Amino acid sequence: MSKFSTAVKRLLVGRPFRSDRLAHTLLPKRIALPVFASDAMSSVAYAPEEIFLMLSVAGLSAYTFAPWVGVVVVVVMLTVVASYRQNVRAYPSGGGDYEVATVNLGRKAGLTVASALLVDYVLTVAVSIAAAMSNIGSAVPYVATHKAEFAVLAMVVLTAINLRGIRESGATFAVPTYAFMIGIMGMIGYGLFRGLVLDQDMPAESANFELHAEHGELMGLALVFLILRAFSSGCAALTGVEAISNGVPAFRKPKSKNAATTLLLMGFIAVVMLMGLIVLAQLTGVKVAEDPAQLVNAPEGYEQKTMVAQIASAVFSGFPTGFWFVTIVTALILVLAANTAFNGFPVLGSILAQDRYLPRQLHTRGDRLAFSNGIIGLAAFAIILVVAFDAEVTRLIQLYIVGVFVSFTMSQTGMIRHWNRKLASETDPVERRRMRRSQAINAFGLAMTGAVLIVVLITKFLSGAWIAIAAMAALYAMMTAIRRHYDRVTAELVKAESAGPILLPSRIHSIVLVSKLHLPTRRALAYARATRPDVLEAITVNVDDLDTKRLVVEWDKQNFTVPLKVIESPYREITKPVLDYVKRVRTDNPRDVVTVFIPEYVVGHWWEQFLHNQSALRLKGRLLFQSGVMVTSVPWQLASSAGVHVDDVVAPGLVRRGLAVDEEEERR
Amino acid sequence: MSKFSTAVKRLLVGRPFRSDRLAHTLLPKRIALPVFASDAMSSVAYAPEEIFLMLSVAGLSAYTFAPWVGVVVVVVMLTVVASYRQNVRAYPSGGGDYEVATVNLGRKAGLTVASALLVDYVLTVAVSIAAAMSNIGSAVPYVATHKAEFAVLAMVVLTAINLRGIRESGATFAVPTYAFMIGIMGMIGYGLFRGLVLDQDMPAESANFELHAEHGELMGLALVFLILRAFSSGCAALTGVEAISNGVPAFRKPKSKNAATTLLLMGFIAVVMLMGLIVLAQLTGVKVAEDPAQLVNAPEGYEQKTMVAQIASAVFSGFPTGFWFVTIVTALILVLAANTAFNGFPVLGSILAQDRYLPRQLHTRGDRLAFSNGIIGLAAFAIILVVAFDAEVTRLIQLYIVGVFVSFTMSQTGMIRHWNRKLASETDPVERRRMRRSQAINAFGLAMTGAVLIVVLITKFLSGAWIAIAAMAALYAMMTAIRRHYDRVTAELVKAESAGPILLPSRIHSIVLVSKLHLPTRRALAYARATRPDVLEAITVNVDDLDTKRLVVEWDKQNFTVPLKVIESPYREITKPVLDYVKRVRTDNPRDVVTVFIPEYVVGHWWEQFLHNQSALRLKGRLLFQSGVMVTSVPWQLASSAGVHVDDVVAPGLVRRGLAVDEEEERR
Repeated sequence: MSKFSTAVKRLLVGRPFRSDRLAHTLLPKRIALPVFASDAMSSVAYAPEEIFLMLSVAGLSAYTFAPWVGVVVVVVMLTVVASYRQNVRAYPSGGGDYEVATVNLGRKAGLTVASALLVDYVLTVAVSIAAAMSNIGSAVPYVATHKAEFAVLAMVVLTAINLRGIRESGATFAVPTYAFMIGIMGMIGYGLFRGLVLDQDMPAESANFELHAEHGELMGLALVFLILRAFSSGCAALTGVEAISNGVPAFRKPKSKNAATTLLLMGFIAVVMLMGLIVLAQLTGVKVAEDPAQLVNAPEGYEQKTMVAQIASAVFSGFPTGFWFVTIVTALILVLAANTAFNGFPVLGSILAQDRYLPRQLHTRGDRLAFSNGIIGLAAFAIILVVAFDAEVTRLIQLYIVGVFVSFTMSQTGMIRHWNRKLASETDPVERRRMRRSQAINAFGLAMTGAVLIVVLITKFLSGAWIAIAAMAALYAMMTAIRRHYDRVTAELVKAESAGPILLPSRIHSIVLVSKLHLPTRRALAYARATRPDVLEAITVNVDDLDTKRLVVEWDKQNFTVPLKVIESPYREITKPVLDYVKRVRTDNPRDVVTVFIPEYVVGHWWEQFLHNQSALRLKGRLLFQSGVMVTSVPWQLASSAGVHVDDVVAPGLVRRGLAVDEEEERR
Repeated sequence: MSKFSTAVKRLLVGRPFRSDRLAHTLLPKRIALPVFASDAMSSVAYAPEEIFLMLSVAGLSAYTFAPWVGVVVVVVMLTVVASYRQNVRAYPSGGGDYEVATVNLGRKAGLTVASALLVDYVLTVAVSIAAAMSNIGSAVPYVATHKAEFAVLAMVVLTAINLRGIRESGATFAVPTYAFMIGIMGMIGYGLFRGLVLDQDMPAESANFELHAEHGELMGLALVFLILRAFSSGCAALTGVEAISNGVPAFRKPKSKNAATTLLLMGFIAVVMLMGLIVLAQLTGVKVAEDPAQLVNAPEGYEQKTMVAQIASAVFSGFPTGFWFVTIVTALILVLAANTAFNGFPVLGSILAQDRYLPRQLHTRGDRLAFSNGIIGLAAFAIILVVAFDAEVTRLIQLYIVGVFVSFTMSQTGMIRHWNRKLASETDPVERRRMRRSQAINAFGLAMTGAVLIVVLITKFLSGAWIAIAAMAALYAMMTAIRRHYDRVTAELVKAESAGPILLPSRIHSIVLVSKLHLPTRRALAYARATRPDVLEAITVNVDDLDTKRLVVEWDKQNFTVPLKVIESPYREITKPVLDYVKRVRTDNPRDVVTVFIPEYVVGHWWEQFLHNQSALRLKGRLLFQSGVMVTSVPWQLASSAGVHVDDVVAPGLVRRGLAVDEEEERR
């Protein structure tokens, strides 16, 4: 089975590259920033636009609230950054929010955070790719009209690349992230210079449109609700901020300090970009509407472009290279952000598997097969979402933010407890003061993120957040069930252990399964004899009288010292007669251990599996249900098996764990 | 994997019943007739109608050819019956056409016949079920308007019953077959009595319709072609005639004579029913048309009923019980005919597997899993055909007849050769005369079936026969490839054998794989020690430093005499480090045999498989590629495994192999 899936994978994604040139490479801040910040920074490509889109429902007059909503988002962002600076100092092991919640609030809280994070990985892929396609679509209309198709294609390609094992290096992350920073910052700087210093007019293509309210002017509570919704959507800018807290071990020493500094730098850059884009949007008069029908004066067949694209085209009017550069790097960083989900999943999966919430093999990171299943699952869910929501960022974002703020809130709550515990044993007043300060920051963070979570729940629940919450609940239930199973097995073993020591088998009774007298059988016989069992016999199942007679004659001719027993099978079946025989042997000699030697062909092609060993495999599966029976496979390698060898494996996300291809080695 | 599919199957088809009350039961002629003849007899439910349908293209005047076409079909039928009477005498082993062709004409001819038969099984299911639904639809209009859906449903149910293991007995076949014979014969007798003796008028519901020619009156060659097409379709009556030749061993002694007599009886009954229905169709004035638009005067929304239903309703006018009886038994025998395909497949599959044209496990009949795959495949293809052709018998029949006549023709050719060989060594003039007579019959049969095959190919190729031929070619290619693979393996073993005897291993080097120090590990250690290897060591892969350290400490505390080696794995992988270690052991001691003991959990639920043993399984798969390495699974049965036991299995088609539930035993 494993060979079959390998073959299929080979077909899909080509040969994986070898990993023996990997080396531990700790990241300097200038590389760590792009590695961990691409997700958070990419959010500014859609967060400000979403604020305007939400406000658009109330018509153009509501746009005046946009900068104020932006300011509140900035405040939350800076609060969260400040809070996570405490996290990375307190938990430098890279366990992130899951660890903080588990240690301080218990397993259930930890599992809630884990469920939220897993759902977020799916949404990061869906939202980022949808946003990337919207941006490309703003430059290439054909993509805009086939957004969902292109988004699915992009996700399939991304999945294939990640299955193949991406050859990560610092540069993979640094180039697009710095290019994006240069592009957006350059645009903001140039735009502000043109608009405020040169006082030039930079009308966006939608500057002359009128924007009508959807249901007339909103007043009072309705307006407040709308502004809160806009704020919730704007908080999408915060997604990805927690990434650094999972990556502290990959930083150069002093790890925590460097991580905290990088976090601050990232927050600062993100805030500048966010506010810069909001200001530019107002300077250029961009109009975006949730419902295109609200845009009056728009030409026939007008397709809304993304805000970033409209700003770029306005700021760089007469200089199309600038527009193309911004559009391309925006799409690029969004794809990179989607990729972080593929990077983050193996790390979280490994931790959850260690705590026995996921199948154990996910813990051994080299087990690429298991992670491949995870990656395919991740991509499949993201594709379903993108198709279901037609790659509309605005609709996908309704699902996105709830998971992020669940884990923020849990994490901050955990941190407050953490400081309480620390304070209980700490007596040094200086140290205590520092802890109090940290705790205050985390408490402020909790108040802030908790409030946002409530706002998000109220404003987004019916528009899609319920889907994310249902998915979280399902994951929570599944992981609990897995953990319960493992616990039950452990309890069972403990109980068995208390029943007394394992009886040493008194004798070994070996049985060689014979169907023909060919080389694989002879080898099995020779090996079985070499183990010097107390009893050694060969058995064959009489499926065909003639064949069996021939076998017996030949057996006698060869003068084997091993007796051949013929087991009758009136209905030409193999499994049951052998099982019955083995059971009888066990009953007659309860303290003996029975070893059944089964000759097995080893083949090189997956389809050959169907032509060999099928009966043996099933028999083996059944024999294992008998206590006191061991099954020994004696392989016979067919020529076709020679071409198969074990691949060195490499999983995505190496760089953010401080592992990278050793370029030194590479050059040799 | 096997456990998973078992679970799925249990869900679908319930628990199989136990087979230990099966006994060899040879069939008397009165039971053998219904067991083997249902397929052939059921054909008369649609064959005469197809003759009229084909002729309808040329308008009502062409109907006058129907009895003559019927007579020619009867002549072919009787010829084929006479020929097969020679077959069953010469080949009483039940190998049927495949055996006759293989023995006399070589493997390629045999394989051609086998391909034709396999395709025919699929078409028997599709055509019979479609015809059954047409007949039910003639009584229940709702079924007529949803024919394809009901046909699919019926096939799914039939498949489920066959997967579950059908509890066959003579009565299963006798009741519907004799009921059908009584129904049709009774209808013919009563109809002829009313029409010819009492001279009553029995107008069918379509008697007053006019039937217009599709493209005007046909003349000359076009008419000849049309009549030939009608004849080809009428030859559908011959499908199933060969069934008895596969079942000779199930007859009571003298087997061949009884089989030949039954064959004759079957032919006689089929011929009477065929001609009787054609005569009744003309007496009652039934009109059926390929294109309903040809029927003039038909009321608005008229749905054509089957010919049998129309005749029954005309003959039994004023006596609806008669109509219902005929319709029900007709549908019943058609379903029974479809079931013969499920019965025939395991028999043919077993023979082909013995000749290594199909995976070997199909040979051991008890291997129900393999046959289940076959049954599902059979049903899947039949469902595809029924859906593709919208359950239209007329369209499906275009594919059907070519396979039947390919195997008829091949078989008769083989028989001529057979007699030539016999004649070459026979000197007794009486015996020689008898042989010459048999040969003459087979030669006449060949001429007849060969001519029909050519007619069928010419008249049906473009209307669908090409699909059947393409399918036969594909099956032929697949089976050839499988055989070539097995031959290559045999050649490889012969070559290896000629390279000299197997070196006896000088020593056994045993390695126990340890991940934790729990009971499964202890048992593996105890068992490994009991095999008294020359070297015994335990190894563990260091996936997690802390865990490993704990393990080593505990190991030392326990005072095992077996040393524990820790293998480093920088990327937390298991397979490769272990493989490398084993390779090193093998390189250092090339004449040693390495036995790797892997503790394995045995679980009861399929999903538990995903939570255990995954790494061990993959490792095992890889270890087997190393020469000189045995892998021993030491099972640890978890409590959940206790509920699993091996089912006694029963495959469809037992009765026709002379096996049936022992009713004596049953009563106790």
